[in-house]
Amino acid sequence: MSLTIHPIMAQSFAVIDREIGTHNFSSQEYAIVRRVIHSTADFEFKDLIRFSPGAIDAGIAAIRRRVPIVTDVGMVKQGIVGLVGETFANPVISAVEGIKKPLPGKTRTETGLLKCWQEFPQAIFVFGNAPTALLALCQEIPQAAVLPALVIGAPVGFISVVESKMTLATTEVPQIRVEGRKGGSPVAAAILNALICLATEGEV
Amino acid sequence: MSLTIHPIMAQSFAVIDREIGTHNFSSQEYAIVRRVIHSTADFEFKDLIRFSPGAIDAGIAAIRRRVPIVTDVGMVKQGIVGLVGETFANPVISAVEGIKKPLPGKTRTETGLLKCWQEFPQAIFVFGNAPTALLALCQEIPQAAVLPALVIGAPVGFISVVESKMTLATTEVPQIRVEGRKGGSPVAAAILNALICLATEGEV
Repeated sequence: MSLTIHPIMAQSFAVIDREIGTHNFSSQEYAIVRRVIHSTADFEFKDLIRFSPGAIDAGIAAIRRRVPIVTDVGMVKQGIVGLVGETFANPVISAVEGIKKPLPGKTRTETGLLKCWQEFPQAIFVFGNAPTALLALCQEIPQAAVLPALVIGAPVGFISVVESKMTLATTEVPQIRVEGRKGGSPVAAAILNALICLATEGEV
Repeated sequence: MSLTIHPIMAQSFAVIDREIGTHNFSSQEYAIVRRVIHSTADFEFKDLIRFSPGAIDAGIAAIRRRVPIVTDVGMVKQGIVGLVGETFANPVISAVEGIKKPLPGKTRTETGLLKCWQEFPQAIFVFGNAPTALLALCQEIPQAAVLPALVIGAPVGFISVVESKMTLATTEVPQIRVEGRKGGSPVAAAILNALICLATEGEV
């Protein structure tokens, strides 16, 4: 399988290559960082993205074996279904979708996430919005019999966001994280889409 | 009609109020700027958002009379359909949706946008991604018999993005614009969602 990059994206990548300056990313890490900068025009992400050891390999392997991909919100799903559909066709589920009434004391996204976690504990989980849902997942992980294949932790905002990412960092789950307040649906989608591109390389 | 703000959003707004520092925005302008910062955790947007005279009033009036809202891409549509559905129920159309084959020499988004422009010339047009589509609209405006009710110009990226916004600035269409390379689907959606909230205020 091979993906053709749109000429405008290739030109954008060339601009980023010229402007990013020195860094210590591996080529796979840089492919992910560059795609995030492409989706935000914000070079600060160069200093915010963290990879746990083996996270990229775990993500690529999981994509190739077509594990489900669970997103916190619909915008993240919308940002990845195109490329997923053209490539490995993993099922993509938005956790919040279809949750009319949250569990007592929980947000709708948290409620939906816990439901998805029970159904697909080994999924790839992608957070671009909801820190409450990321925190809920992190609380399940220590007692879990199986771990998610990968967690992409990129909620955005001012309340519980930094805490949710710090909590994720303390877990042993393979993870790609955006430190601090920044993040968002396009950032989370860019990380997953970059992984899909990496997963197509060397496929026979 | 009145909207209740989620407690987490209210807390986020309070943080932004404390941290934003001095500014000269009107209260309506600030409601929009604050929602953009809420969706990105990026205070730089304070210095990037531009309002043409009367743009907010034009947007509010158009939302209230339920004109169609045309977005460039699906992620922007996904970011607004919830609040639109709960309030004024304007039709929301993603320009790129359903365009399998672009016109020769054009992008898919540009092709879709020109189709929507012919069908709904007085719509609200919301750009969070595609500078080519924004440029295509700007080229139609000088000869147009009727103008769009409002253009929200927030494409993001490195190629043609700055140019597309500078071109929009030269037109007479009512507009809310994000200068520079930054923007994106959550930014475009936040501007539209803030306008919806303003449109509900004082409604009987």
